[in-house]
Amino acid sequence: MIDLRSDTVTKPTEAMRRAMMEAPVGDDVYGEDPTIAELEARVAGLLGHEAGLFTPTGSLANLLGIWLHVPAGAEVLCDAQAHIVRAEMGAHAQLHGITTRTWTTSDGIADAATVAEAIAPDNGPFLVRTAAIEIENTHNFGGGTIHSAETLREIRSLALDAGLKTHLDGARLWNAHVATGTSLADYGACFDSVSVCLSKGLGAPVGSVLVGSAEDMARARVQRKRLGGGWRQAGLLAAAGLHALDHHVERLAEDHAAARAFAEAVGLAAPGSVGPEKVPTNIVVVKTGERPAGEVVAAAAGQGVALSAVGAHLVRAVTHLDVSLDDCRTAGAVLGELLALNPRTDGPSSGFAGRVVP
Amino acid sequence: MIDLRSDTVTKPTEAMRRAMMEAPVGDDVYGEDPTIAELEARVAGLLGHEAGLFTPTGSLANLLGIWLHVPAGAEVLCDAQAHIVRAEMGAHAQLHGITTRTWTTSDGIADAATVAEAIAPDNGPFLVRTAAIEIENTHNFGGGTIHSAETLREIRSLALDAGLKTHLDGARLWNAHVATGTSLADYGACFDSVSVCLSKGLGAPVGSVLVGSAEDMARARVQRKRLGGGWRQAGLLAAAGLHALDHHVERLAEDHAAARAFAEAVGLAAPGSVGPEKVPTNIVVVKTGERPAGEVVAAAAGQGVALSAVGAHLVRAVTHLDVSLDDCRTAGAVLGELLALNPRTDGPSSGFAGRVVP
Amino acid sequence: MIDLRSDTVTKPTEAMRRAMMEAPVGDDVYGEDPTIAELEARVAGLLGHEAGLFTPTGSLANLLGIWLHVPAGAEVLCDAQAHIVRAEMGAHAQLHGITTRTWTTSDGIADAATVAEAIAPDNGPFLVRTAAIEIENTHNFGGGTIHSAETLREIRSLALDAGLKTHLDGARLWNAHVATGTSLADYGACFDSVSVCLSKGLGAPVGSVLVGSAEDMARARVQRKRLGGGWRQAGLLAAAGLHALDHHVERLAEDHAAARAFAEAVGLAAPGSVGPEKVPTNIVVVKTGERPAGEVVAAAAGQGVALSAVGAHLVRAVTHLDVSLDDCRTAGAVLGELLALNPRTDGPSSGFAGRVVP
Amino acid sequence: MIDLRSDTVTKPTEAMRRAMMEAPVGDDVYGEDPTIAELEARVAGLLGHEAGLFTPTGSLANLLGIWLHVPAGAEVLCDAQAHIVRAEMGAHAQLHGITTRTWTTSDGIADAATVAEAIAPDNGPFLVRTAAIEIENTHNFGGGTIHSAETLREIRSLALDAGLKTHLDGARLWNAHVATGTSLADYGACFDSVSVCLSKGLGAPVGSVLVGSAEDMARARVQRKRLGGGWRQAGLLAAAGLHALDHHVERLAEDHAAARAFAEAVGLAAPGSVGPEKVPTNIVVVKTGERPAGEVVAAAAGQGVALSAVGAHLVRAVTHLDVSLDDCRTAGAVLGELLALNPRTDGPSSGFAGRVVP
Repeated sequence: MIDLRSDTVTKPTEAMRRAMMEAPVGDDVYGEDPTIAELEARVAGLLGHEAGLFTPTGSLANLLGIWLHVPAGAEVLCDAQAHIVRAEMGAHAQLHGITTRTWTTSDGIADAATVAEAIAPDNGPFLVRTAAIEIENTHNFGGGTIHSAETLREIRSLALDAGLKTHLDGARLWNAHVATGTSLADYGACFDSVSVCLSKGLGAPVGSVLVGSAEDMARARVQRKRLGGGWRQAGLLAAAGLHALDHHVERLAEDHAAARAFAEAVGLAAPGSVGPEKVPTNIVVVKTGERPAGEVVAAAAGQGVALSAVGAHLVRAVTHLDVSLDDCRTAGAVLGELLALNPRTDGPSSGFAGRVVP
Repeated sequence: MIDLRSDTVTKPTEAMRRAMMEAPVGDDVYGEDPTIAELEARVAGLLGHEAGLFTPTGSLANLLGIWLHVPAGAEVLCDAQAHIVRAEMGAHAQLHGITTRTWTTSDGIADAATVAEAIAPDNGPFLVRTAAIEIENTHNFGGGTIHSAETLREIRSLALDAGLKTHLDGARLWNAHVATGTSLADYGACFDSVSVCLSKGLGAPVGSVLVGSAEDMARARVQRKRLGGGWRQAGLLAAAGLHALDHHVERLAEDHAAARAFAEAVGLAAPGSVGPEKVPTNIVVVKTGERPAGEVVAAAAGQGVALSAVGAHLVRAVTHLDVSLDDCRTAGAVLGELLALNPRTDGPSSGFAGRVVP
Repeated sequence: MIDLRSDTVTKPTEAMRRAMMEAPVGDDVYGEDPTIAELEARVAGLLGHEAGLFTPTGSLANLLGIWLHVPAGAEVLCDAQAHIVRAEMGAHAQLHGITTRTWTTSDGIADAATVAEAIAPDNGPFLVRTAAIEIENTHNFGGGTIHSAETLREIRSLALDAGLKTHLDGARLWNAHVATGTSLADYGACFDSVSVCLSKGLGAPVGSVLVGSAEDMARARVQRKRLGGGWRQAGLLAAAGLHALDHHVERLAEDHAAARAFAEAVGLAAPGSVGPEKVPTNIVVVKTGERPAGEVVAAAAGQGVALSAVGAHLVRAVTHLDVSLDDCRTAGAVLGELLALNPRTDGPSSGFAGRVVP
Repeated sequence: MIDLRSDTVTKPTEAMRRAMMEAPVGDDVYGEDPTIAELEARVAGLLGHEAGLFTPTGSLANLLGIWLHVPAGAEVLCDAQAHIVRAEMGAHAQLHGITTRTWTTSDGIADAATVAEAIAPDNGPFLVRTAAIEIENTHNFGGGTIHSAETLREIRSLALDAGLKTHLDGARLWNAHVATGTSLADYGACFDSVSVCLSKGLGAPVGSVLVGSAEDMARARVQRKRLGGGWRQAGLLAAAGLHALDHHVERLAEDHAAARAFAEAVGLAAPGSVGPEKVPTNIVVVKTGERPAGEVVAAAAGQGVALSAVGAHLVRAVTHLDVSLDDCRTAGAVLGELLALNPRTDGPSSGFAGRVVP
C-alpha cells in the first residue's frame, strides 16, 4: 500500500530509533530531562524565540499557544478553515472559553487587508476584545498553501499597532521554509508564539514544540499539566525530534517534488482534475468530478493507494518520508486512470479541501 | 436632553405602570406566575412557536437560544458583526464552551450563498460540527438593516438540508415587522428559536422572551436557573411587556419616520454624511468625516443631543418612544451643523458601525 | 391553602406595589437608575460594605460573590450541604470552572477547627489553592440554623491568616439578625462579600443584593452582564426592596414565633417528630417516621397545608409574611395528626434536611 | 544522591529500552499502533474490563475517567485529600465543569458509611445530582494507605443502589495488589473505570492506562484528542509499559520492604517520628517535630538524600526501582540522625501528608 492519507503516518527510521535508545532522560515535571531541554532550546533557537515546550501533540501546542494570549471571554481571529477552528474539536472554546471570529479566503491564504477588517479593538468590558491573530503556515485545508514572509510581516505590524498578540500554527512550517527558502527565524519573528510539529513531515513518532518567551513557556508548562500533558521521561521522544531536525528537514524538498510528480501523473490521465501549479508543498487536492470522493478513495485503495476524502468531490494525497518519488508517480497514475474513466465536471466540486474533511 | 444613545433608555409610561400595578403574580420557579405565563404564551403565539420563556435580558435569551442547539465543542455560524459574537462578552464560549465561525457582510445582511459556504457538515468526532446558524434581524451594528423574508426562507432551507438548527436574535424584530409588513409568524417560521426584546423599542422596563418548542423551553428554563436567571414574582414586569404588545408595536413606524427625519436634517446640513435611503428602521449611522466621533458626541451633548460613538469616525442615533419627530429633526439639525463646520472626507470612515462600538 | 413550602412564595403587599409604582427609574446598564443606586447603597451600608449590586436572584449573587474571589482552577471551601454546592446546579464549576471541597456538619453549622482542617495553603501551581471560604447563615438545609458571630469572627481570622477571602450566603441573614440581635454590620464585617435576598422573608417580588468593595462590585457588574443579568429599568423592583427594608425586617420575629408554634402543634400530636428547640428561625424540619415524606406532603395538601418533602422521611415548613400565627398553628395540628396516625420510628429518618430536597 | 522524592523519577532500564526499540508502531489516531493496542488490551484484561486507553499521564487518565461518568453541572464525591481534587489543578472543574463534594478521613481511607452519608440522589434539575464516587488506592496523600477489597465492594454496592458510577484512581494500585494479594481483577470489579500508572513504581518512562467498557473507552478516545492527548506512534512508550508489566510488578514487594527498612532506620535514631506499622506500601511520611520540613529536606540533600516536604513539619520518602534496600537504610539513618539532633514534639505536626504538599 502506498499510504498518502497524511504525513502523520510515518514511522521512525532505524537511525532515529538508535538515537532514541541512547538518549539520557529524567523527570520532566521536575524539569530534569536533559534531552527534552535540548530539544526545546534548539527549536526555540531555530525560530528565534527564548524558550520552548515539548507537547504530545500539535493540537496541544496550539491549545496552549492561543491560551497564552487570549483570556476567556476575549477572541482570537483566524481563517474560517484554520485547523484551530475546524480540526481541534472546539477545544479552545470548550476548555478555555475563548471565542473566535473568522475571515474567509479561497485557499487559506489571507492578505493583511482582510485581517485588518476583522480586528475589533478594545472598547470596554461590554464588547468582545480581539486579543490575538492566528495564522496557519502552510495551510492544511487550503492545500499546503504558503503565506509569504511579506504578508506575515504586514499582519505582524497590524497586530502590533492594535496591541494584539500573534500565534503561528506552524505544524508544517518546515515545508514552507524548504519550499521558499525563508528562514525559520524570519517566520518566527512575526509571532509571539509558534507551534511546530515533529511527527508530520519530519517523521518523529510523537510530539510538537511550542516556542515563545521564557515567561510564556513557564505559564504554558503549568497549563499543559492541567490539561493532562505533564509527562515524565519523554526524552526518548525528544531524541527522535532532535534526530529529525538533523536529518529530515532539507529532505522535505523531495516530498514536494513527489507531490508535484503525483499531481502531474494525475493530470496527465485526467486533465483538469489537478494542476501542479496548485501544489506548493506536500499536499495535493484532486477534484473527482461527478464521482463521490468516498467511492474514489475506496477504488484507489483497491489498487494499493491510500488517499483521504476531503470533500464531497475532493480527495487529498500527502507525501512524506515513507513514500518515494516512484511510489507517488505510480499512485498518481492509478488515481488519474480512475478519474479518466469518469471525467470531471465543474459543477459539484469545491475548491476548498477543508470544507469537508481534513 | 434629546437622548438618542439607544432605544434601551425608554422609561415606562404611566399607563404601563398602572398595568404593572394590577398584575397578579406568583412564584415563577414553581411555575405559578399567571402574568408571566400569559406573556410567554402570547409572544410564542405571535411568532408561531409552542412556548416562551421570559428572561431579564436579551443577552440571556440569546445565550439560552444558542445553548439549546449547540453543545460544547460544536459551532454556531453567524455574521462577523452579530450581537452574539461582538456584544455578548464572549459568554457563549466562556460559559457554554461553544465555538463560532463567522461570515462577512457589508451591512450585516447575508445572502444564502454566503451562509451555505460556511456550513461544515458532521464529519465525525474529530472535526467541529456546525450545529446551528444564527441571524440577527434587524441587525444592530449593520444600522438597523433588515433580512428579507425570502432570504430567511432560503437560509432555513439550507439549514434543514444540512440538519442544522436556526436561532433568530430578534431583539428588534418588531421594527423589521413594522417596516416591512412581514408578519411575526412568517419570521418565526424560519427559526427553531427566536429571542425578542421588550425593553428596546417596545418601552418595557425589563425583559426579553425566548420562544421555541415546549421541550426546548423546558430545557432552557433549567439552564436559565443555572445562569442565575430563575427569578420569582416577575409578573409585574411581564405585565409591562403585555401592555407594550398592546400599545407600542404599531407605533414603531413613528420611530422609523423620526429616524428618517433625523437623517434628512443631518444630510441637509452635511451632505454625504448620511442618506435617508440608509435608514431602514430606527437606527441612523452618520459619518463624521475627519472629526473623531468622540469629539462630535461631546459637542452634540453640549447642545442637548445625546448620541453614541460607534466607530472612530461614526456616530449613531437610535429613535424610540421617548423622543418625538420634532426632537429628532432638531437633533439632526444640531448634528448636521456640527459636521458642516468640518466637512467629511471619505478616507477614514468605515461603513460598518459595529466594527468599533455598539 | 396555607402555603409553607418556602418563604419565596410571598406576594408583594399593596403598600409595596404603591412604592414600586412611584419609583423613578433609568437604564441600569448605563448606571442611570436612581432607585437601584439607592437600594445598592443602602444594603451596602447596612452590612458595612462599600458598594452593592442588585441581581435578579440569590443564586446569581452567590455566583458572582464566589467568582470574585476564586479563579478557575482554584477552590472554595464550604459545608457539604451548602446551598452553593447543593442547590445552585453546579454553576460555580460549570460556568466558572471553580473547584470545591467540603466539610461535614450535623446541622450546617461549622466550628472554626473544622474549617481550619480543610484549608490548603498555596503550594505552587501544581496543587489546587484554597482561595475562599463560604458560609451560609442562616443555613437552609440545616433547618434555618445560625452561625454565631463569635464563630464567624474565628473563621474570618483563620481566613485572614491564610490569605483567603470569605463570602457569606446571607439569603436569610435577616432572620439570623432578628433572631440573635447581632447587627447586620457585625455579620458583614466577617466577610469580603455578602449576598442577601429580598424575595424570601422580606417579601419583595424579585431580587438579591451582593455587597463588597467598590472595586469588586464594579467587576461583578461586568460579569453579571456576561451571565445575562444586565437588566435595564429594574428600579421598580429595587423600590420593592427598599420598602421591604423599611417595613419587613423586624417582623421576621413573627415568622420565627409562627415557626415555633407550628413545631409545638406538630410535637403535641406527634411527640418526637420535631422539637421547638430545633426551630432557631423560620424553618421547621419534621421527621415523618416510617411514612414516606412524599405521601405525607400529599396528605397534608389534601387538608389545605402545603409543605415540601426534603428527605425520604423528612418534610419542611417555612413561615413567612403571607401566613399568620394561627395559620401555622392550624397547619401544625394538621401535620401532627397525620403523623400521629402512624407514629415515627427512629430508623429511617435522617437529621439533615438538605440531603434530599431543598 | 539517593532520590526518594517520588517514584516518578525512575529511568527506563536497559532491558526496557531494548524492548522499546524493537516495538512495531503505527498512527494511533487512526487506531493503527499494534503495541498500544496490545498494552491497552492487556491492562484491560488484568483489571477485568473490556477496553483500555493509553494516556501520556495519570492526570489525563483520571480527567477522562471522571468525565465519562459526570456531566458538567453534576458532581463526583471523593476524599477531601484525593489526588483528583488536590493535585490535578482543578482541571475537572475548569475544563469539564464538574463540581465536587468531599468526605473527610484521617488517612485517606473511607468506610462505606462515610461515603453513604455524602450521596445526594437525583432530585430534579434544580439540585446537584451525585453522578459518581471516586476512590484512590493506594492513597497518595494518606501515605500509601490501602482500601480493603471488602470496603470497596461495600462502596460499589452503595453506588449501584443509588445509580452512581465509580472510578478508581489506581495510579499505585499495583502496590496495593502486591501488598495485599488482592487480585487486580477483584479491585477492577468494583469500578466502572480504573486508571493505572506505568511510570511510577513500574518504572516506565511515560504513560497511564484508563480501562472501562468498550463504549466508554471510545468516548474517552475522542475527548483525549480534544484535550490534546491524541498522540501518534506512541507504541514505543507502550512497549515500555508491557515490559514493566512482565518484569516490574512483583518486585514492588522490594520497594515496600525498603520503605519499612527506611522507616525503621529513621525510628531507631528518632523514636516517635515514624513507625513501620504506618508504612503499608512504598510511601513513608515522617514527622520533623519542631524543625521546619523545608530545612530538614535541605539538610538531608546536603548529605545525599533527596526527600519531599509534604507539610509544615512532615517529610515524605517514596521507594522505587532505582533505590536499593541498602540505599533506603542509609537514607533512613541520615534522616533519623538529623531529627535526633532536634527531637520531635507532638505539637505542630499533622498526620496528613496531603494537607500541604504532594
